[in-house]
Amino acid sequence: MKLQVPGFVAGAVAAGLRKDGNKDLGMIFSEVPACAAGVFTTNQVQAAPVLFDKERIKSGRCQAIVANSGNANACTGKRGIEDAEAVARSAATALGIPEELVLVASTGVIGRHLNVSVIETAMPKLAGQLNAAGLYDVAQAIITTDTFPKTVSKQSSIGDKTFTVAAVAKGAGMILPDMATMLCFVCTDIGAEPHLLGQALKDAVTASFNAITVDGDTSTNDTVLLLANGLSGLNLKEAACAAAFQKILNEVLFALALQIVRDGEGATKLVSIQVKGTSSKADATTVAYTVANSPLVKTALFGEDANWGRIMAAVGRAGVPINPHTIDIYFDDVCMVKDGLGCGEETEAAATTVLKADHFTITIDLRLGSEAATIHTCDLSTDYVRINADYRS
Amino acid sequence: MKLQVPGFVAGAVAAGLRKDGNKDLGMIFSEVPACAAGVFTTNQVQAAPVLFDKERIKSGRCQAIVANSGNANACTGKRGIEDAEAVARSAATALGIPEELVLVASTGVIGRHLNVSVIETAMPKLAGQLNAAGLYDVAQAIITTDTFPKTVSKQSSIGDKTFTVAAVAKGAGMILPDMATMLCFVCTDIGAEPHLLGQALKDAVTASFNAITVDGDTSTNDTVLLLANGLSGLNLKEAACAAAFQKILNEVLFALALQIVRDGEGATKLVSIQVKGTSSKADATTVAYTVANSPLVKTALFGEDANWGRIMAAVGRAGVPINPHTIDIYFDDVCMVKDGLGCGEETEAAATTVLKADHFTITIDLRLGSEAATIHTCDLSTDYVRINADYRS
Repeated sequence: MKLQVPGFVAGAVAAGLRKDGNKDLGMIFSEVPACAAGVFTTNQVQAAPVLFDKERIKSGRCQAIVANSGNANACTGKRGIEDAEAVARSAATALGIPEELVLVASTGVIGRHLNVSVIETAMPKLAGQLNAAGLYDVAQAIITTDTFPKTVSKQSSIGDKTFTVAAVAKGAGMILPDMATMLCFVCTDIGAEPHLLGQALKDAVTASFNAITVDGDTSTNDTVLLLANGLSGLNLKEAACAAAFQKILNEVLFALALQIVRDGEGATKLVSIQVKGTSSKADATTVAYTVANSPLVKTALFGEDANWGRIMAAVGRAGVPINPHTIDIYFDDVCMVKDGLGCGEETEAAATTVLKADHFTITIDLRLGSEAATIHTCDLSTDYVRINADYRS
Repeated sequence: MKLQVPGFVAGAVAAGLRKDGNKDLGMIFSEVPACAAGVFTTNQVQAAPVLFDKERIKSGRCQAIVANSGNANACTGKRGIEDAEAVARSAATALGIPEELVLVASTGVIGRHLNVSVIETAMPKLAGQLNAAGLYDVAQAIITTDTFPKTVSKQSSIGDKTFTVAAVAKGAGMILPDMATMLCFVCTDIGAEPHLLGQALKDAVTASFNAITVDGDTSTNDTVLLLANGLSGLNLKEAACAAAFQKILNEVLFALALQIVRDGEGATKLVSIQVKGTSSKADATTVAYTVANSPLVKTALFGEDANWGRIMAAVGRAGVPINPHTIDIYFDDVCMVKDGLGCGEETEAAATTVLKADHFTITIDLRLGSEAATIHTCDLSTDYVRINADYRS
């Protein structure tokens, strides 16, 4: 599946914002103004591009996204907003489109002012080299501590018409070292009204980016933007189309979310934490996050140690109602704990085999109700500490 | 200050519960039945000795404490409770005192049954070697991943009468690797009624053990026991005595709490996180814990990186009301952030010097009110991951 969508062109250049000389400025351009929806960080400390986009996206329309790595433009005050405006203006000029149709995104170090002049200098070159296959370059330009660019593309057909959803993302943690964190840009040729597009995006994000954790830290810059240019001739107002689009969008964002966890800083494994048997979905989510973020559980996963006592301790402190005597725990199909008690040393040996896989599921059944939730996480390795301790040195 | 209290004797032996052959069974004995108070883990998954002691301490009286390392007797069901009872009975027989005056405590691996027979075999020898200077041996017998035994002793006088508070503790994290965690035994010759003693203990614990965090995990075995034998002739019902005792008790528990953080698994620094300017103490505590438990903040502290952006991000996700534009952050006396904006690279250099100290304070002033709270924590090092990944291998 090619990473391209009819009517969208993209590209990236090395503007000089990164010390390592890699590509650091990317652009996505829709040949016609697109319907736009966005989801942003819930952190109360929000970066300038987040504040800027939240305001601008209220129109429900967008034609271009400009994104940089190397600097998060966060905790930069009034000047940060002015810098975001200047970047958008520079892009609009280079593209010959109205300024208000440009959205921006930044990722990198927090607390330093953006070098706007190098961006302005690079902009005409960037705009001049946009091409249909350029989304991969954008994926490269936005990575920071990521070890690989994250891309997914899918198609679906309704009758004789085909639509495409292609997306790029970056992130190696809910927050990155001194950087801030997760960006995702989705392009589609579906047609849509802003409120339907916004709801579809929200639903897809809930089951993907909002169901993963690397280190429990939420960033100041998290941004997901979805542009829909309508060129497929299909529109979200038709029920069949809405259902098909939602399915594909969910798949695309979920695949990207798992790529982010797999690329979690220092991670060696992808682990799905499934909690069931609660009386509410919120309780299941809380328990799953508590287990998924426990440093002791995560270090045991890194050590491939079937240390279920740490899982029991995390469940017990999660702050939701439990009964210690009705808890069952499975590592894939291996039952480790039954009625809150260990199943013996033999099953520990079987569980240790499960732990050697690069993806497995830990199921925690509280047997108090019929609700469930799953959170996807990674282990906590010595490399996580090394990456985060050494980042700015 | 000698680690002994009139009327108390103690001792420890290697009963054979630990693989390494170190002392693993300790006992504290009061020559007269003492007034007793206890504080226990809030984890909903509670170890057998915790469930056992919570019931037994309702009498407000205790004459002996038996504690073992090597096994937490947690997640062991009905048999765990029977094992705790058997240990208490064995101690009562060896000491010739009523069974209901014995409390027990355990720390070590979760989910394995206690080897009661080796404890019963060792009990007569243990009871036979109790001595006035034996508290240090108890401190040694209860350590697990701790790198040093934790002891504090203080005296105070009122008129011509002197009282002593001596205490031992173990713990290198809010929870330990596959072990469970913090134990503290306090002996004093003050006189008291159970309800006054209980209140004094609660107050002292709030400002000490409940104000530290190593990794944010709460254990299944946390236990603090305080025995007061009255031999000083001073009694808590006198106001002057109550005030003097509270002061000394606070100092003793606070000193032990800081010893635990200093000995946090893999820790290289003790860091006090002071949050002020909130409208409630609860808000200040929540923000302080969020910062103190952030893996990104903790790894930056390990890397001696004055990375205030991570602190801002943690404050922003703490879930309490903040204004990003009224936040000031200090590393000791160095102002790093003013009105939510960085103070420039020069102050970063000064802050880096602060970070090289082995104890310093990070002050976060939210400037929204007059409440404050301080939490003491340590950094997150590669050794933390190594200790916790390798523990059972």
